[in-house]
Amino acid sequence: MAIPQFKQLRRAYGFDEVAIVPGEVTINPDQTNTELKVEDITFTIPIIASAMDAVTDVNFAILLSKLGGLAVLHLEGVQTRYQQPQEILLQIAQASDTEITPLLQKVYSQPIQENLVGERIEAIKKAGAVCAVSATPANTKRLSPIAVEAGADILVVASTVTTARHTSKSYRGLSFSELRKTLPMPIIVGNCVSYGACLELMRTGISAVLVGVGPGAACTTREVIGVGVPQITATIDCAAARDEYQRESGRYVPVITDGGFRKGGDLCKALAAGADAVMLGSILAQAKEAPGLGYHWGMAHPHPALPRGTRIKVGVSGSLEQILFGPASVTDGSQNLMGAVRTAMGVCGAFTIPEMHQAEMVVAPAITTEGKFWQLSRSPG
Amino acid sequence: MAIPQFKQLRRAYGFDEVAIVPGEVTINPDQTNTELKVEDITFTIPIIASAMDAVTDVNFAILLSKLGGLAVLHLEGVQTRYQQPQEILLQIAQASDTEITPLLQKVYSQPIQENLVGERIEAIKKAGAVCAVSATPANTKRLSPIAVEAGADILVVASTVTTARHTSKSYRGLSFSELRKTLPMPIIVGNCVSYGACLELMRTGISAVLVGVGPGAACTTREVIGVGVPQITATIDCAAARDEYQRESGRYVPVITDGGFRKGGDLCKALAAGADAVMLGSILAQAKEAPGLGYHWGMAHPHPALPRGTRIKVGVSGSLEQILFGPASVTDGSQNLMGAVRTAMGVCGAFTIPEMHQAEMVVAPAITTEGKFWQLSRSPG
Amino acid sequence: MAIPQFKQLRRAYGFDEVAIVPGEVTINPDQTNTELKVEDITFTIPIIASAMDAVTDVNFAILLSKLGGLAVLHLEGVQTRYQQPQEILLQIAQASDTEITPLLQKVYSQPIQENLVGERIEAIKKAGAVCAVSATPANTKRLSPIAVEAGADILVVASTVTTARHTSKSYRGLSFSELRKTLPMPIIVGNCVSYGACLELMRTGISAVLVGVGPGAACTTREVIGVGVPQITATIDCAAARDEYQRESGRYVPVITDGGFRKGGDLCKALAAGADAVMLGSILAQAKEAPGLGYHWGMAHPHPALPRGTRIKVGVSGSLEQILFGPASVTDGSQNLMGAVRTAMGVCGAFTIPEMHQAEMVVAPAITTEGKFWQLSRSPG
Amino acid sequence: MAIPQFKQLRRAYGFDEVAIVPGEVTINPDQTNTELKVEDITFTIPIIASAMDAVTDVNFAILLSKLGGLAVLHLEGVQTRYQQPQEILLQIAQASDTEITPLLQKVYSQPIQENLVGERIEAIKKAGAVCAVSATPANTKRLSPIAVEAGADILVVASTVTTARHTSKSYRGLSFSELRKTLPMPIIVGNCVSYGACLELMRTGISAVLVGVGPGAACTTREVIGVGVPQITATIDCAAARDEYQRESGRYVPVITDGGFRKGGDLCKALAAGADAVMLGSILAQAKEAPGLGYHWGMAHPHPALPRGTRIKVGVSGSLEQILFGPASVTDGSQNLMGAVRTAMGVCGAFTIPEMHQAEMVVAPAITTEGKFWQLSRSPG
Repeated sequence: MAIPQFKQLRRAYGFDEVAIVPGEVTINPDQTNTELKVEDITFTIPIIASAMDAVTDVNFAILLSKLGGLAVLHLEGVQTRYQQPQEILLQIAQASDTEITPLLQKVYSQPIQENLVGERIEAIKKAGAVCAVSATPANTKRLSPIAVEAGADILVVASTVTTARHTSKSYRGLSFSELRKTLPMPIIVGNCVSYGACLELMRTGISAVLVGVGPGAACTTREVIGVGVPQITATIDCAAARDEYQRESGRYVPVITDGGFRKGGDLCKALAAGADAVMLGSILAQAKEAPGLGYHWGMAHPHPALPRGTRIKVGVSGSLEQILFGPASVTDGSQNLMGAVRTAMGVCGAFTIPEMHQAEMVVAPAITTEGKFWQLSRSPG
Repeated sequence: MAIPQFKQLRRAYGFDEVAIVPGEVTINPDQTNTELKVEDITFTIPIIASAMDAVTDVNFAILLSKLGGLAVLHLEGVQTRYQQPQEILLQIAQASDTEITPLLQKVYSQPIQENLVGERIEAIKKAGAVCAVSATPANTKRLSPIAVEAGADILVVASTVTTARHTSKSYRGLSFSELRKTLPMPIIVGNCVSYGACLELMRTGISAVLVGVGPGAACTTREVIGVGVPQITATIDCAAARDEYQRESGRYVPVITDGGFRKGGDLCKALAAGADAVMLGSILAQAKEAPGLGYHWGMAHPHPALPRGTRIKVGVSGSLEQILFGPASVTDGSQNLMGAVRTAMGVCGAFTIPEMHQAEMVVAPAITTEGKFWQLSRSPG
Repeated sequence: MAIPQFKQLRRAYGFDEVAIVPGEVTINPDQTNTELKVEDITFTIPIIASAMDAVTDVNFAILLSKLGGLAVLHLEGVQTRYQQPQEILLQIAQASDTEITPLLQKVYSQPIQENLVGERIEAIKKAGAVCAVSATPANTKRLSPIAVEAGADILVVASTVTTARHTSKSYRGLSFSELRKTLPMPIIVGNCVSYGACLELMRTGISAVLVGVGPGAACTTREVIGVGVPQITATIDCAAARDEYQRESGRYVPVITDGGFRKGGDLCKALAAGADAVMLGSILAQAKEAPGLGYHWGMAHPHPALPRGTRIKVGVSGSLEQILFGPASVTDGSQNLMGAVRTAMGVCGAFTIPEMHQAEMVVAPAITTEGKFWQLSRSPG
Repeated sequence: MAIPQFKQLRRAYGFDEVAIVPGEVTINPDQTNTELKVEDITFTIPIIASAMDAVTDVNFAILLSKLGGLAVLHLEGVQTRYQQPQEILLQIAQASDTEITPLLQKVYSQPIQENLVGERIEAIKKAGAVCAVSATPANTKRLSPIAVEAGADILVVASTVTTARHTSKSYRGLSFSELRKTLPMPIIVGNCVSYGACLELMRTGISAVLVGVGPGAACTTREVIGVGVPQITATIDCAAARDEYQRESGRYVPVITDGGFRKGGDLCKALAAGADAVMLGSILAQAKEAPGLGYHWGMAHPHPALPRGTRIKVGVSGSLEQILFGPASVTDGSQNLMGAVRTAMGVCGAFTIPEMHQAEMVVAPAITTEGKFWQLSRSPG
């Protein structure tokens, strides 16, 4: 009898299953540098707000740019479907749990108004902020020229899973190499989770990659279509692709871990796993300046035939500035995210984010019988 | 001292512990082909309804056949023990939790009426549907000739565990090779979970194999007799047996993962693990056309001496068509199962189910401390 | 720098983490033989009742012996400290949760009355039952002559951990080789959990070994002193010692897995892991004939300085006969234990318990996100 | 294509995931020796009270010293910021959950009064107790001369993570080699968790090392900054560093596992993993003599910008003597810690703590589906 050939499964890890090991050298947090560069644009903090309607509108994009980060405006959300999106956002916030999915399906069935695309971008640029906008692959050819003309600085092309090679009957496959040549701005593409797919994307010449499909533990995408890779493993794999691509091309393409974050520690773990930046949704939806009015929902939720995700009441935890820079008045890791990042870099002896990529990590599941028992830090500093 | 020889245990995985990794190429869901062939009979969707009384009756079998799948009528259930099974099904639905086990033991102690066996089959055939019927090994010799005469198309022979070699005092062991030679129809046999047992069954000449013993996590069979293999590992093992058998015989015997499914993602994972089709119980018991009136129970539950299983209130979630093809109005993965399958195949770049078998999978436990926290997809499409 | 030498930890498994894989051959349950032999004494079922006051008294020992198993009377429990233990058992059953530990400490501080030791044994023997009695190593020299004189058939010497070599200031170490030579009856010794300790015990000439220290998941011994090995691994290790000892001596010393069982499936798993029999406490305390009045507590609970364990309300689930042989009227695996054992043996194709030791097992954790969802067996038989 | 270089993650274990295996030889608990030596100072029990305001004040330090252990007074806590700390401790105990973090931030913003540093130390010494005091690296140069002058016996220098090499803009890095030469007393340094960092610290000439960063499962440090190593692995690694350092220098530097303990079993596991002593916070905060009035909080909680930890109501479980030596009137492992340690050493056949380091351990997760079910020890002793 031949030796049976069984399909092999690799173990993958999420945020909750790992921890960072302190280094043999430590530095003071105030000596760390947390810069992110996307081509020629430099951000002082490696934090990007998701292209989600509960997170990013014009005002939020302006504010986060001033604070050193970047927010991405989705060109296929309520901001470009409605002249007055506030009314729609209020309806969403006030809908009951049973009404919400049909309501979202209806809200997002309204057509995108191309004039609004231009207006939103111009409003962001007028305030002197960096303007990033997002489209799905199917709509990129239509929307990107409008974005260019209105003065957008960065284009994000993203769907649940995006690859360099896509076959479709309904639209001609988007070629990122061609897009890169014709567009006068950096292009961020996502989402991907594996070494091979990420390396292929980088080889098309794009500017940065979003990492994350079905991030986290109980993600709806995993429930609905079974697809997903936990974020730590996805980040490790895509970071390996980035390093390989740099070896072969000399070009450094940042990896942005997108989704599944719940607290400051998760950001630190993503950076230690190899991320150059993080893209945050629900954490930033809690800012008092976020458009979601204390609610959050995913952009795949309104899918007409196969909706995925849930609307969540996230509440309002403080100003965006407090969430990013503190001071924290709570101890659950939801405020002063950059203080957390700098502290973690300090205990790992990392002056820069690329040095943070060298930090040792362990697999250390966060669940135990007594997981609800108290645990206290014992010393200040 | 000799080196101690300890018994070795292999790690096995269930649906919740794995996830599918997107491919390096993607295709549009509408370009996928989801066909299943059992000998000369082709089904457009790889979905089979369990031979359980809460799922399949004559009407349900007709409906699912028209929708492209297959339902299996159990020849030892209420449909063949009672002229008017509706009354019995109503009693089961209305019994209290403490009454249910004795009631089921009583209900299923009534004799099988051979005339009803024929009548049920004829009713299905008269409607132009494909008719599959199920018997246990002990009753196969008695019931299969009646099924043949009444015009059934497919015979399913199944018990908790069925092997090619069985020893019994009370009835002469069933020989599948002999049965295959004498019966003029495809024979599906189950259930099995291991490479060796599956390969032996295939070598008897049968047409397809049901995979699953004590599927899932908290299965009653595992509690009561300790036996079971989680479905992903069972499917991987039996798929390896199928591939080996094809190498040695040239014949392709489909593997049907039977049981333990809770949502669309589980179906996708079974296919990625190597299944050619899935057999569903509780998910389909939620269809408004299912005979169980919103309840579901297992066919081992009525066992007179060692009952296993529980009656569950599954509720009614929509029509069978909506469960299979959507559009979904909920986001928990319980509707639009085929939309989920096609979407998963799309992100894996699989045009056919055999191509889906090549998808990469990871071990990615679905439990974490924060498993109840929200997770949102970020982009449409 | 030298390569660091880290302490290595081996992975150990409990009942909930494993499952039995069906065999390639199956047999009918009624063809199985479940005999256990302890030297010249044969039991038709491999089930032994714990030497615990909530489980075994004179009447229970007589009944279980008649049903084919064995119950062990503890010579240091309430039966030998009190002429009328019923009153004490009633007090224990009626005490509140805060009163129970001090009450048990007080109850068990009463002296053992040697005349009662003899009386209890004689009562069991008078009824024609096999009589097994239990003592701790410290009291064995004092109590065993009384047991011999009163006619006991089997002596169990057990403490939390018992080894062949023990150092003590307060009493001269018990030598099992000497004990074995002087006592005219089989000696069962425990508890142990490791290959080496078990092999050493067998080499002293004893008749059987009890396996289990801190069995199960949330065991008090593990909480209080951190010591314990999950039962599947402990059984596998001690079974390997038994096989090695048989190779070197020709003598077969049964291994009895003691403790941590919750349902029939656990018994089956212990036998598949290598046990020749199982010792049950809480499951049998639920019998209506058990002396505990629906409560159960451990014999280390009354320890004057370091009490371990909790008193649990187990309730009364049926007669001992029903628990052992059914028919079951519940589906949770707590009744018809022998039916479960025979069914499991059947699906593994095992005619005898030594054949059951050859069954394949997998690691298959019983916890998942959806662990509370329903799981149903799909076919009778 | 080059083989991808993925970041590797090592598996780490916490208290709940491991258990001690009994030895092949056992000894009576009363024959064990539990001594700890820090340079020339010998303690009869290996238990050190944390430098936390809810645990250690002058009276507690005196009492624990008399009982054979050691308590560490934090020189940067309420005892040195307030002449009458009782009032402050009462405010903390009476604050609501929403008030507590801002209150602690305010309480600890008061300046340290150097005269109080001297007074507290003198009070401890006057009672004839061993006096250990604690400072953070940033304040060590200022506070240590005062401690020396007042007669302190041991200096503890500790922060969340302390390394032999630290870079700071705001204060000149503390050199432990220099400190060791100038100070006439043993120096204990912490916290660290890895082989390399621990070995470097030992090479500076310090007297003992505290092990533990973000100990336990759901630790706030892990949530807030993602950093931490579970205590069993941290202890194993630092014990390996200790053994390596002894090989290269001939000097034995004790390893003290600090934090994450919840019950006696955890202490036993730390010792078996290689610890020479344990530092306890919340367990001792439950003593009726502890200053926290039934509450406990971490010393990183008051951090002005990035507070970590929670205030917990621990309650009052008994006197310190009862917690340490029993007799226990509860069975949850929170009392008679030394009885538990000695019993565990007994079943491992360890006469001394260095012998206990040789005990075998297994990975044996404490969680299972049935984790809440009862488990009972079956025999006394």
